[in-house]
Amino acid sequence: MTRITFDDVSHLDEQDSLAPFSARFDIPDGLIYLDGNSLGCLPKAAKDRLNEVVTREWGQDLIRSWNSNDWINAPARIGNKIAKLIGADDGEVIVGDSTSINVFKCLSACLQLDNSRTTLITETGNFPTDAYMTEGLAGIAPDRIGARLVDPDEVIDSLDETTAALLLTHTHYKTGRLRDMAAITSAAHQKGVPVIWDLSHSCGAMPVDLNACDADFAVGCGYKYLNGGPGAPAFTFVAKRYQEKVFPALSGWLGHKQPFAFDDRYAPAPGINRFQCGTPGIIGCAALEVGIDLMLEADMQALRQKSSALGDLFIQLVNQECGEFGFEPACPINAAERGSQVSFHHPDGYAIMQALIACGVIGDFRAPDILRFGFAPLYISYRDVWKAVDILRDVMSSEAWNQSQFKQRAAVT
Amino acid sequence: MTRITFDDVSHLDEQDSLAPFSARFDIPDGLIYLDGNSLGCLPKAAKDRLNEVVTREWGQDLIRSWNSNDWINAPARIGNKIAKLIGADDGEVIVGDSTSINVFKCLSACLQLDNSRTTLITETGNFPTDAYMTEGLAGIAPDRIGARLVDPDEVIDSLDETTAALLLTHTHYKTGRLRDMAAITSAAHQKGVPVIWDLSHSCGAMPVDLNACDADFAVGCGYKYLNGGPGAPAFTFVAKRYQEKVFPALSGWLGHKQPFAFDDRYAPAPGINRFQCGTPGIIGCAALEVGIDLMLEADMQALRQKSSALGDLFIQLVNQECGEFGFEPACPINAAERGSQVSFHHPDGYAIMQALIACGVIGDFRAPDILRFGFAPLYISYRDVWKAVDILRDVMSSEAWNQSQFKQRAAVT
Repeated sequence: MTRITFDDVSHLDEQDSLAPFSARFDIPDGLIYLDGNSLGCLPKAAKDRLNEVVTREWGQDLIRSWNSNDWINAPARIGNKIAKLIGADDGEVIVGDSTSINVFKCLSACLQLDNSRTTLITETGNFPTDAYMTEGLAGIAPDRIGARLVDPDEVIDSLDETTAALLLTHTHYKTGRLRDMAAITSAAHQKGVPVIWDLSHSCGAMPVDLNACDADFAVGCGYKYLNGGPGAPAFTFVAKRYQEKVFPALSGWLGHKQPFAFDDRYAPAPGINRFQCGTPGIIGCAALEVGIDLMLEADMQALRQKSSALGDLFIQLVNQECGEFGFEPACPINAAERGSQVSFHHPDGYAIMQALIACGVIGDFRAPDILRFGFAPLYISYRDVWKAVDILRDVMSSEAWNQSQFKQRAAVT
Repeated sequence: MTRITFDDVSHLDEQDSLAPFSARFDIPDGLIYLDGNSLGCLPKAAKDRLNEVVTREWGQDLIRSWNSNDWINAPARIGNKIAKLIGADDGEVIVGDSTSINVFKCLSACLQLDNSRTTLITETGNFPTDAYMTEGLAGIAPDRIGARLVDPDEVIDSLDETTAALLLTHTHYKTGRLRDMAAITSAAHQKGVPVIWDLSHSCGAMPVDLNACDADFAVGCGYKYLNGGPGAPAFTFVAKRYQEKVFPALSGWLGHKQPFAFDDRYAPAPGINRFQCGTPGIIGCAALEVGIDLMLEADMQALRQKSSALGDLFIQLVNQECGEFGFEPACPINAAERGSQVSFHHPDGYAIMQALIACGVIGDFRAPDILRFGFAPLYISYRDVWKAVDILRDVMSSEAWNQSQFKQRAAVT
């Protein structure tokens, strides 16, 4: 392979149709932020929008804003916008609560679809909250509900007539491995099992087409590639065919068909609205909506193409510039099998990440030995990738590193 | 009773030690806001704080803020501040999720304390989300868990050896009726039943002393008297003696003892932290913390005294000025039995409230016929009460009212 030069990389930036988007974000000077898969950057428009929602909508309009500023419909309105990013229809996505809570909503919904199916299955190594939520739900009725963790390679084989739900992450948080949503959903359906897809590391990073995959349920996170702000509200997708079959386990008043009738008995709202629970966090919704609106301006195919190219470039440059330092890929090398992130194993992973962060390159470390780098294609440039690898090489070959200051620091952390 | 004059009312304001607090809030010019029990006003300091959390903490510090700006401890830190307002100890209150979700956490916790107790009891006419959450939880295992609604007067009699939890609201959302927390908790304990207190309409409006009442569990709302912003995160109180006995049903990753170990199996964090679930909404937490910090500056006894006096004055003035218009009290007349709100029945309640709102007095209407007025003692003055009743009299006696324009409008709504 011919050696990649800075000119090559600059050329890629010049040809990048998504390049103008980076000016829409506040990105700290001199920082190379490869952690948009953990917390996305701040869209500049969010500052004005939050000022408006706080100063005018809350401060001046007060309680009237539930109607006059349409707060009451924010969860459904923003849900409909997210639907466009993930191949869902209007009325299939609702915003609110956290990904964890929304996993619980979907798991408990699946338990209602067929009383004879009582086991919740997810895989080892999944993002832990997914597995944890199956445990907590099973704990409510341990004589009836089971929670099983199976090997990632045995997921389909593990399904049988007792399986109530299969809960899988589309893009793996640590390795970036991409699951084949269509094939797995189809295989699960062959066994009568609905699948819950966790899209936390997929939505906003690549095209997702839930309905084309005949997907059943999905959840996802607002604060990663959707750039919705720290702890942004999450979302829930429920295919239309299931919505009216579910009596929500988290049956809060805003999921009632007439919340303001203040009836003593719960009666679920029509459609996706029954998957609301309590009063939504309006300020968080406002920030999220800015991130979604910005994302909707981007071409998702171009986004995916750039995301793949950024990851490929990073892998190639690490090979080229840091080949002697012992980084072993922890993600698929084939971009088609990978989300918008690249991971490497390294025995000194924690220390190396601390050193990188000190030098202005932010990725993150995932135990036991993984360095994880996310490439949010809306605001990361090819030159950013070049510079990040340049700094990685400096870190690995520097006197400071050889003197092991970071390794020592890591050892006592 | 001697007639109350505007001078009398002005004199009360001059003597009010809490009067300076109103300058700390953004209150729209000319508006008399008697709905702080639904959505509290905007503390001026919230604007700068939110700008800081968005622009600097999210925008500049990004993912590092979880440590450098202590985002990770926000739920426990703010919880400890709320604890001071409700008679709880450090480590007994955690912020996050909605009141509804937190009700579910407490209900499911109670079910774990004694396997032989499987019925969840609340009262008819309670704020509906409380009752609804018992239904949803029972629906997960209907052969094991029961949800019962009982008459408010039969609450204690309804408890028996099968009761897992009694869920009650301290201050009733509609009538303002105040429950005797100490007496009810004690009576429930006599029957071996833990009580979950919903403090949504109490916290920030009066002193609450959970531990002095030997309380078990409690939840509360951040966006009413705590002035935390629309849909602010809610809170959960779990008495220390129960914390380690509960394996949370909503077992999200941030309730794990080592969230960043990414273990496959859930192991609950020590203490109150296990009642966290997913990633907290940091922007919402930041706004809430401003409201709490402001509230902590106020003397809670003075707050309660003023709240009672505002309500008493409103009742007296309605009698004095609007005696002929058919308002019937829907709240206790004795301030000691009432929260920080006053309610009246009126057959034209909806129309009257619409007319009041059009004239700049905001309260709210609760079906079927209740006008509800909240008196947030941090920012409502005695003169506000005078003016509100003045406008109410104008509305009731005006030509517009007699021409029934609002009544007609109400009829078609």
